[in-house]
Amino acid sequence: MAEYVLGIDIGGTNTKFGLVDREGNVKDEGHFPTQADADINAFLSLLETHISHLIADNQVIGAGVGAPNGNYYKGTIEHAPNLNWGEIVEFRELFQEKFKIPVALTNDANAAALGEMLFGGAKGMKDFVLFTLGTGLGSGIVVDGKLVYGYSGMAGEIGHVSVNPDGRHCACGRKGCLETYVSATGIKRTVSKLMADYTRPSVLRDVPYNQIDGKVITDAAKNHDYIAIKAFEYTGKILGQKLADTVLHTSPKTIFLFGGLVKAGEYLLDPAKHYMEEKMFKPFKNMVDLRPSSLMDKNAAVLGAAALGWTEFDKVAP
Amino acid sequence: MAEYVLGIDIGGTNTKFGLVDREGNVKDEGHFPTQADADINAFLSLLETHISHLIADNQVIGAGVGAPNGNYYKGTIEHAPNLNWGEIVEFRELFQEKFKIPVALTNDANAAALGEMLFGGAKGMKDFVLFTLGTGLGSGIVVDGKLVYGYSGMAGEIGHVSVNPDGRHCACGRKGCLETYVSATGIKRTVSKLMADYTRPSVLRDVPYNQIDGKVITDAAKNHDYIAIKAFEYTGKILGQKLADTVLHTSPKTIFLFGGLVKAGEYLLDPAKHYMEEKMFKPFKNMVDLRPSSLMDKNAAVLGAAALGWTEFDKVAP
Repeated sequence: MAEYVLGIDIGGTNTKFGLVDREGNVKDEGHFPTQADADINAFLSLLETHISHLIADNQVIGAGVGAPNGNYYKGTIEHAPNLNWGEIVEFRELFQEKFKIPVALTNDANAAALGEMLFGGAKGMKDFVLFTLGTGLGSGIVVDGKLVYGYSGMAGEIGHVSVNPDGRHCACGRKGCLETYVSATGIKRTVSKLMADYTRPSVLRDVPYNQIDGKVITDAAKNHDYIAIKAFEYTGKILGQKLADTVLHTSPKTIFLFGGLVKAGEYLLDPAKHYMEEKMFKPFKNMVDLRPSSLMDKNAAVLGAAALGWTEFDKVAP
Repeated sequence: MAEYVLGIDIGGTNTKFGLVDREGNVKDEGHFPTQADADINAFLSLLETHISHLIADNQVIGAGVGAPNGNYYKGTIEHAPNLNWGEIVEFRELFQEKFKIPVALTNDANAAALGEMLFGGAKGMKDFVLFTLGTGLGSGIVVDGKLVYGYSGMAGEIGHVSVNPDGRHCACGRKGCLETYVSATGIKRTVSKLMADYTRPSVLRDVPYNQIDGKVITDAAKNHDYIAIKAFEYTGKILGQKLADTVLHTSPKTIFLFGGLVKAGEYLLDPAKHYMEEKMFKPFKNMVDLRPSSLMDKNAAVLGAAALGWTEFDKVAP
């Protein structure tokens, strides 16, 4: 009987799940609204209605969970800004009590990095970094074939390095964090600022702030919209500079970019590569490959969460 | 018969060596001018006169070498700005040919981190970072009990993260690198700038630029010299901000500071701690210990280089 890991990705809006085999095939996928404003027990009851039959009917060796601010060591979700379940949620304990299977927890970007390593473009790669450009900017760092958890269990929060100590307000309470510039939200803020700074016409001036997203900006850029192209350049420049800084820490072979914004392709990647190399410390020049995640069009969130489970609970693999 | 590792630290000015046993006891220490302007063969001949009898008379299981821009994987010294031996020196090959003992090579800051782990304050510690504040700023990163070499073999170059893209000229050819602010040279540049910006009297105005060093500034600070105190505050502030950024990458338990400048004690450490915590991402607040290396008053360069050898060649230790 085939073995599976149950992958669960908890987002501020939706929770996704699915059974993933050792080769990365996904079955019985599903999703439901997270109800981030209810309490954790309500969430677990809701989860139960979706997954209990999967656990009963399959050989499930464990669950892997990706969640905002998930702490790998403690199995807790800590200070998650998008989940109103309390400051510190004892997720692992509550989950195991209810579902009686082993569970491991980390944040969604760390899970995505594990997914890339087990099932994506980082197979067999020892040293790489993955950035997820979503509402915020998450990152997962792999060193010598292992995900870096660090002393706290929460390593890899590159979205909060400082771009400008007096810069944009960040959801974390500080100012000028990388994710306030480089993320789906960040580029929207950049568009808003550029519309204030310049007088050039732009189709983006006819779209309400709350409806501007990566796709709208990409479409505008493809039509040679000045503001849109400038917004990608600005975003790519800041990203590139911080990628060069990132390389100085753990010297990755490849940096993977993941998330809807990355679908903009060359509009984001070209300036990011250009400025990464321009700012690169000489010994690392022309050495780092920057490319989109190869899981972009798959159920990456579930694959990543499941990859954590396979890493933790698989007793067969080498 | 006791076993030893030969530790060799190659600096731009002096080369230090010594035999180090498994417990970190050093014997037969020595040093000589590196002759960085001669060629590598002249250096190796000079080295031979100092160490050949040590190898002949003792049970030496191998040598560990710390050198600027030492590449662990390739055994090369690459683009070392202070050594005029060529762009890429095949150090490991040349050394083994001459001395017939195994040798491992890394940069001096990585070696210092290994020294801290085997013989200093990081014994038994899984995750930490060490900064060396000398002419430049070096760093060694340890994750899960292992030094991070990365894909290139040269990870941990935090001295070259960007403080200000339009800032001070750096020896690496770029501008605004951390080490142009936070190092013995960096604080000297800061003193020079502060003397230009302010009119306050200072004993430092009577010292030529080339004679200002960490000790002179520390002594002035102890005498309540405004410029000196302000220079430490400025240095500590930039250091603290970048320590907070460093924590976001690998989440160390402790950050060790090493080097002559660290002897300034509270003048440097107090502002560094203050601004590190002020800038710290909330989940990491009050979690990271910042403290001086415990090898400050020992032959740390030789201990560090030897620690690399013990890590590589010791077949007895667990």
